[in-house]
Amino acid sequence: MEFTLKDLCERLNLEYSGDGDMIITHACGIDDIQKGGLAYIANPKEIANLPTPAGIFDSRKKNIQDLDLSQRSAVIVPIGTESPGSSLVYSNDPMLDHAKAAKLLHEGASKSGMVDDRACIGEKVKLGENVTIDANAVIYNGVEIGDHTVIRSGVIIMDNTTIGENCLIYPNVTIREHTRVGNGVILHPGAVIGADGYGFFQRERKNIKIPQIGRVVIEDDVEIGACTTVDRARFKETIIRRGSKLDNLIHIAHNVEVGEDSLITAQSGIAGSTRTGHHLMMGGQSGIKDNLRIGNNVTLLARTLVTSKTEDNSVVAGMPSRPIDIWRKIQALINSLDSLFERIRSLEVRLNKADDKE
Amino acid sequence: MEFTLKDLCERLNLEYSGDGDMIITHACGIDDIQKGGLAYIANPKEIANLPTPAGIFDSRKKNIQDLDLSQRSAVIVPIGTESPGSSLVYSNDPMLDHAKAAKLLHEGASKSGMVDDRACIGEKVKLGENVTIDANAVIYNGVEIGDHTVIRSGVIIMDNTTIGENCLIYPNVTIREHTRVGNGVILHPGAVIGADGYGFFQRERKNIKIPQIGRVVIEDDVEIGACTTVDRARFKETIIRRGSKLDNLIHIAHNVEVGEDSLITAQSGIAGSTRTGHHLMMGGQSGIKDNLRIGNNVTLLARTLVTSKTEDNSVVAGMPSRPIDIWRKIQALINSLDSLFERIRSLEVRLNKADDKE
Amino acid sequence: MEFTLKDLCERLNLEYSGDGDMIITHACGIDDIQKGGLAYIANPKEIANLPTPAGIFDSRKKNIQDLDLSQRSAVIVPIGTESPGSSLVYSNDPMLDHAKAAKLLHEGASKSGMVDDRACIGEKVKLGENVTIDANAVIYNGVEIGDHTVIRSGVIIMDNTTIGENCLIYPNVTIREHTRVGNGVILHPGAVIGADGYGFFQRERKNIKIPQIGRVVIEDDVEIGACTTVDRARFKETIIRRGSKLDNLIHIAHNVEVGEDSLITAQSGIAGSTRTGHHLMMGGQSGIKDNLRIGNNVTLLARTLVTSKTEDNSVVAGMPSRPIDIWRKIQALINSLDSLFERIRSLEVRLNKADDKE
Repeated sequence: MEFTLKDLCERLNLEYSGDGDMIITHACGIDDIQKGGLAYIANPKEIANLPTPAGIFDSRKKNIQDLDLSQRSAVIVPIGTESPGSSLVYSNDPMLDHAKAAKLLHEGASKSGMVDDRACIGEKVKLGENVTIDANAVIYNGVEIGDHTVIRSGVIIMDNTTIGENCLIYPNVTIREHTRVGNGVILHPGAVIGADGYGFFQRERKNIKIPQIGRVVIEDDVEIGACTTVDRARFKETIIRRGSKLDNLIHIAHNVEVGEDSLITAQSGIAGSTRTGHHLMMGGQSGIKDNLRIGNNVTLLARTLVTSKTEDNSVVAGMPSRPIDIWRKIQALINSLDSLFERIRSLEVRLNKADDKE
Repeated sequence: MEFTLKDLCERLNLEYSGDGDMIITHACGIDDIQKGGLAYIANPKEIANLPTPAGIFDSRKKNIQDLDLSQRSAVIVPIGTESPGSSLVYSNDPMLDHAKAAKLLHEGASKSGMVDDRACIGEKVKLGENVTIDANAVIYNGVEIGDHTVIRSGVIIMDNTTIGENCLIYPNVTIREHTRVGNGVILHPGAVIGADGYGFFQRERKNIKIPQIGRVVIEDDVEIGACTTVDRARFKETIIRRGSKLDNLIHIAHNVEVGEDSLITAQSGIAGSTRTGHHLMMGGQSGIKDNLRIGNNVTLLARTLVTSKTEDNSVVAGMPSRPIDIWRKIQALINSLDSLFERIRSLEVRLNKADDKE
Repeated sequence: MEFTLKDLCERLNLEYSGDGDMIITHACGIDDIQKGGLAYIANPKEIANLPTPAGIFDSRKKNIQDLDLSQRSAVIVPIGTESPGSSLVYSNDPMLDHAKAAKLLHEGASKSGMVDDRACIGEKVKLGENVTIDANAVIYNGVEIGDHTVIRSGVIIMDNTTIGENCLIYPNVTIREHTRVGNGVILHPGAVIGADGYGFFQRERKNIKIPQIGRVVIEDDVEIGACTTVDRARFKETIIRRGSKLDNLIHIAHNVEVGEDSLITAQSGIAGSTRTGHHLMMGGQSGIKDNLRIGNNVTLLARTLVTSKTEDNSVVAGMPSRPIDIWRKIQALINSLDSLFERIRSLEVRLNKADDKE
């Protein structure tokens, strides 16, 4: 969606200088700015290091000189930055306001606010106001979708699922029956929410399926990456708590509870019934075993596998996981293993010589 | 699907006591039981530990007291359990019968037994009796689908694939051409069966595609998790043998053969042309290299990478994989590496002193 | 597509002997050859080892004896191979010509060259000549698709994306807006191109989304595996360079650049803003951390995690990654750790005895 600089600044509740009638068409980076672009500078110093024509910003003077933005594009800058001719937007938090502006400029771009004729809508479906459902999305019976939510093509939402307001469900997402999705949730393409948990028991060495008849609850402001899978609970609920962000290709098993405001990086996994605290941070390709309790503010380095209960504020690494300091020390010792063998051989030689003397 | 307690027990061939006219609407856990629910107790002792109102079961007496189930819900219990007023179902194997009941209550829920007008059915497609195909599924030419199989929305089945009876294909699954799927198979959302295997040769340092013109065979009673990929063979067949269960986000490469009754946990992978025995168990995020022969009853701990031929009944861990006992010992030794360095330093000091004396 | 042997050889510009009117229906392996099949022998010696009836090839004589192919099937063989009755095709590079033949026989099989009535085509969409779009594909507004490209069912291509010529987009692929796909690109089922990169900043311990408003560029002759995800850039571009081949379930993060002619095996991942050289080879389940520069011709063993800048021609293994020779030595030393502890204990005992003597 396009805005005049003036309108955009009104929406963001920010002051500006320069040409208020300029049309802003997109958000962009400061070294990539073109006609209609809106960039930002979080810290006046950062621009001094940019290998671009925009690098003429003089950080000592808090001054943008010669940056050829006038009449074409604008920059959000810290309040107090001087502006010799350029169109500037003044913010206490340029990064945050740029993110807000980008949302206005880009997310709204293709919200029709309408249900496409070629979408398949089941019976007893309740749609809020201004819901967008694109062609070839399939909404099974009894689904409820909140105001302003966008459902893209190829999304399949099965029976009696509830989706909140202002959600964005990208193409080819599958949401199984009875799922609960909160407000402001983003599900990226190919994500699968509510597939059966992985549970079997054996009779005569054959695997028999344990019914997976719980559900998944995704709280407000959660983001789930492309091809990430969150399995439904055996009984009760698998829960992703408010504000947590999951990257691509992650596996969350049945009955897991991910605490609030967590960040889980790509290709990580959490096994069944594990419950994590808030502000969990998992590096890429890491994992947590089943049935564990993980404290608050726990951080896993990339490729870590947590195999035991982990206390608040721990930082762990390795497989099996160890406290980061110990893991680093072990890696250093392993690098010296060769010399260790040498030193032992040398000691043995010396002792043999000593023995020979006697 | 709903049943009266009496009808349900007739189908399961089980005795019951209490109100046979009670409507059972769903299966559930014993600590989560509500009106219309059917729970189970596998072992009278287990209920004593439940932190719930249901915890009033007295295991010594094999007696459910005060459990407020009468007229509202029922519990499958071991034969011989006493029942003061509750509706109980008597079973030699409550867990197994609960699984069967859950299948009746839940899986049948939304089988229409019909082909939706909005499904796209190609030419020369053969459908068995009572096949369900939901809106926006696409069946290419020459596909055969057996009796009672359910194909959900967004499923794409390409040319000349054969699907057996009583299969359940969840939304957005892709099955490439010439695939053979047996009876009773469950494919979870986003699974991809029969994509090209990954094979290239080089000419003048360019990668040239090796044709992948074999197929995939999925035998009876196999379950394939969400976003799991099973690649077609270069020539001949990639095979998942009867009764094996694959979790989410697993990769099975071309020409692999997975033995019967295997359990492969999430995010694991098996590289090209490897053949495993029956009852393979792979922990999460584990892997097996290409062109290996893996014996029967082999178990991999989570995050193991098997790099060599593995005998029957092996339990292995680590990368590269080692027998579990050796791996555990190595982990313990690694934890003591620091002290080892200390001891060597101490030995060197003592020997230096001894030398100085001389 | 079927060809007579004569027609096929004309297209491949190869000589043949035997029955030119024979109908060739499919490519296959030499030990799996049936009526209508076209196999190949790269090296006369290899057939001697095949455990099949075809194993009667006498490599010393460069002669295929008794191989029952006449009138039914044909074999591409090195120029100079003798042919007692069989239908043979003569090639300087049988493997390469077999790959070309397979492409003709199989890829063209179901290209209709038409847009199915049930595909959803947006506004301002430009289609080249002979484009195939199957039922239930969805093409959003402003998309351009080049000549001879095939779009299968369930594919969703969002606004203003450009796809080149001769591409093959398998079912249920999602391509987000503004993506650039070159010529001859193959995208396997469930692949997701251009989902938001994973970027957040924090304010008052809440995660705030960093806008991901760059795009993805896939250059010519790239292949992307099933359920592999390539994220769009924060600003600017994520790039997969010409001729690179990605296996299944791989994660390529925002702003990554994968160099030309690379091979990346299943379940591997590359974190944000890392740039790799040409001819990168990543073994299965390997990874590269963010913001690194990786040289040309670098090879990672399976399960490696690269954590630092890596020079041209490096071969690395382990987590954290080490040069292959060092990693192998460390693994050997680790296997001897137990004896190391023994030797130290023995040294201590000897030294204690020596001390006691004094």
